[in-house]
Amino acid sequence: MWSVDPRTGKPREQVAVEATAEEIDQAVRAAHATRDALSDRTARAALLRTAADLLDEAAAHVIEAADAETALGPVRLTGELARTTAQLRSFADVVDEGAFLDVRIDLPDPTTTPPTPDLRRWKIPLGVVAVYAASNFPLAFSVPGGDTASALAAGCPVVVKAHPDHPATSELCASLLRRAAAKAGLPEDVVVLVHGFDAGVALVRHPLVAAAGFTGSVRGGRALFDAAAARPAPIPFHGELGSLNPVVITDAAAAERAAEIGAGLAGSMTLGEGQFCTKPGFVLAPGGEAGDRFVDALTAAVSQTEPGVMLDHRMRAAFVSGVTERAALPGVAAPVTPGSGGEHTVSAGFLTVDAATLLKGGYELLLEECFGPVTVVVRYGSRDEISRLLALLPGNLTATLHLADEDPQAPGILAELTPLAGRVLVNGWPTGVAVAGAQHHGGPYPATTSTSTSVGATAIERWLRPVTYQSTPGRLLPPELQDGNPLGLPRR
Amino acid sequence: MWSVDPRTGKPREQVAVEATAEEIDQAVRAAHATRDALSDRTARAALLRTAADLLDEAAAHVIEAADAETALGPVRLTGELARTTAQLRSFADVVDEGAFLDVRIDLPDPTTTPPTPDLRRWKIPLGVVAVYAASNFPLAFSVPGGDTASALAAGCPVVVKAHPDHPATSELCASLLRRAAAKAGLPEDVVVLVHGFDAGVALVRHPLVAAAGFTGSVRGGRALFDAAAARPAPIPFHGELGSLNPVVITDAAAAERAAEIGAGLAGSMTLGEGQFCTKPGFVLAPGGEAGDRFVDALTAAVSQTEPGVMLDHRMRAAFVSGVTERAALPGVAAPVTPGSGGEHTVSAGFLTVDAATLLKGGYELLLEECFGPVTVVVRYGSRDEISRLLALLPGNLTATLHLADEDPQAPGILAELTPLAGRVLVNGWPTGVAVAGAQHHGGPYPATTSTSTSVGATAIERWLRPVTYQSTPGRLLPPELQDGNPLGLPRR
Repeated sequence: MWSVDPRTGKPREQVAVEATAEEIDQAVRAAHATRDALSDRTARAALLRTAADLLDEAAAHVIEAADAETALGPVRLTGELARTTAQLRSFADVVDEGAFLDVRIDLPDPTTTPPTPDLRRWKIPLGVVAVYAASNFPLAFSVPGGDTASALAAGCPVVVKAHPDHPATSELCASLLRRAAAKAGLPEDVVVLVHGFDAGVALVRHPLVAAAGFTGSVRGGRALFDAAAARPAPIPFHGELGSLNPVVITDAAAAERAAEIGAGLAGSMTLGEGQFCTKPGFVLAPGGEAGDRFVDALTAAVSQTEPGVMLDHRMRAAFVSGVTERAALPGVAAPVTPGSGGEHTVSAGFLTVDAATLLKGGYELLLEECFGPVTVVVRYGSRDEISRLLALLPGNLTATLHLADEDPQAPGILAELTPLAGRVLVNGWPTGVAVAGAQHHGGPYPATTSTSTSVGATAIERWLRPVTYQSTPGRLLPPELQDGNPLGLPRR
Repeated sequence: MWSVDPRTGKPREQVAVEATAEEIDQAVRAAHATRDALSDRTARAALLRTAADLLDEAAAHVIEAADAETALGPVRLTGELARTTAQLRSFADVVDEGAFLDVRIDLPDPTTTPPTPDLRRWKIPLGVVAVYAASNFPLAFSVPGGDTASALAAGCPVVVKAHPDHPATSELCASLLRRAAAKAGLPEDVVVLVHGFDAGVALVRHPLVAAAGFTGSVRGGRALFDAAAARPAPIPFHGELGSLNPVVITDAAAAERAAEIGAGLAGSMTLGEGQFCTKPGFVLAPGGEAGDRFVDALTAAVSQTEPGVMLDHRMRAAFVSGVTERAALPGVAAPVTPGSGGEHTVSAGFLTVDAATLLKGGYELLLEECFGPVTVVVRYGSRDEISRLLALLPGNLTATLHLADEDPQAPGILAELTPLAGRVLVNGWPTGVAVAGAQHHGGPYPATTSTSTSVGATAIERWLRPVTYQSTPGRLLPPELQDGNPLGLPRR
């Protein structure tokens, strides 16, 4: 595995080699052997906090390593690292509080039918979790990211499959996590890193892997989902695969503030070179004069965007061919042509098409996510066309409505957007996912392959299962379930 | 579809015909069209309570119909009906309380990175749920059972695939549920009943079916699970497939109360003709004198069991051939021979084998559930053999430990049983599942295909997904999410 500079396409150094089948097996077994040690919740919380501290201490080195491999820039990566360490610390708080154990106790009641015995339920870790790192978040959704943090918090050892775009960053972060484990008195193998394409499928098929977390493409994610479901004993596969993130601009909203919406869309779709999973990629704007003003504003703003570097040259090539193929469809125009911006860069742009044209059929490609700084603007001529376009869409992480005050179209369109997404926004932009209790980052397939969230405290629930102890003597119960609540946990 | 009397094998009446592909499509579309009506929580609660009332009013008729098709007897079916109506009413309470909506609200906070907007999260129904009725519970896990009740409580219309063993009972219950819907001011098609083998696969593949609940065999359940996972957009499949329900009797427990344990096992394994999903089917008992006394007590009790009628003649045939094949394995003995008990009945029995023999390999059949009144007793010679036997087992709904006071083997064996099951019992028997908050009815595959429970209030969570509204004006929000909490819901 070579670390490659996306700004030049030149290999920087060989970081690791692809793991063999035997090495994958060893990695999983090594992680599996740490389960008992990880059952110590105090040590788990210490591991998560120490990992955050070590990442903070090594911040300059981590950010430099990530920037060299991803070209995301130090400003963005500084923010991403802060988000990552905050996430690790918040999961340490989750572990300390213990509400995630969901302890419920029923004392015996002989009057029910059938009689209720002494029942004590809590949640236990599933086992080894395979984490598939994302290309576009080398920290927050990679080795030290949310899947790893939530799995460790749950008590599950983790085997991370590094993303090939940032092997050196992955190695550095894994070494910090493993050092944190040692400092917390835990085996280093609570986190094991592996590299290589074949490692992905081998991991999800390994009998000792109990669940998987994935952030990436529809193609790769679906292949792994299928492998997880086809196992002799299927396992939960929590994947975030792809999202168009539709935006609807009502007639009234366009009439009221076409220019503002056009500029806002330009900012959101080009942020981070359009490499966010929540990039707005499919925009319904009215035909007519107000819609023209929106397109003019979008044209002006996108035209001024400087060419940028994508995460790797393979993605750059996919972007260039993807936008070329889409722009060549009959009736599709490119007010600002997206595509190659130089030998190593891409230029942002957007495409337009009439709703009536698209609804004729043969435009499935426009309903697929195109990773990079491009969006598709569909000009609608009637309220009915909005409904017909929305009915074509697959599931999404987000759906956005731009409306005006007292907008007569708003309630109906909002009701049509809700079934399409996990987060519905009004008069905003979907990029920038706040970490908050009421946040939901997930949505109908292919946005995610399960109904869970990958962001926020409830992400820990993905790696746990309930177990009830019936009529079990207190001396044999874990302290969490014993009479008198010796650990002072939240219980029901 | 003919209603057949299992006591004679004679067809009673033709109740319905197998649904065609077109009829399945119509059934799903009819159910789907009721989603908006079902979003009225007051009407949903009324539907569930009215359904319970109508079932109670028709109790004599319902029990007679079920007994004629299942031979389960009026005592058992009276209890099952009471459990069914209690379950419907308890889900009405769940709907009224509204905690299942899991409302979480974050007010805007510009100080976080990224800034937190106004976020309001709740859970919405997934859509049409396909329910696959169980053979062995014609009421509590069939048309008016827990999957239907929890799906309707969540706001999901239901298409039930009737079990071929009780088509007349299914029709009767469906008509009562549909009448309850009409009385509650809802469309009757909130519940639609279909019959036929092909209907099963057609349902789980239908694009408008959003989730499925299943109780049945490993073979049938796995085929439907695979079909759900292979869809262009996969859907959650909550299936309860099969369980051996292992029991470990320690040396000390056998020494202390061999006779009591033998009699208790006989009662549990023959209850309801061994047709419970929690039937103890694999028992580890010590060799030596104490273990011999346990086998003697089991022999005495099982010998006195009268022949009984199974749910249908196909199951009877499968039981007879299943026990014959198992008994023919080298080294397997049958102290009480299970098998045919007459033209329409079966006789209870059990098999024994030495652990050392089984551990040599080639005894996979003994590790598969055999539906009916039989259990396999494995005589172990050492503590190590217990571990080696448990390591061979697939996932289970339950695992049971019989121990003595101050039993030195207990902690270690309990730790080995916990990963194998969703409910771990001490000194009891797994049949008879109490409906209680701390209950968990589920377990590692193949016990269930997800980490959810199919019994208890949290079963509703299977049919919901979170949606977050961001910066959405109050007038466009549902009242559940509006400022001031106009409905007085539990919220965070």
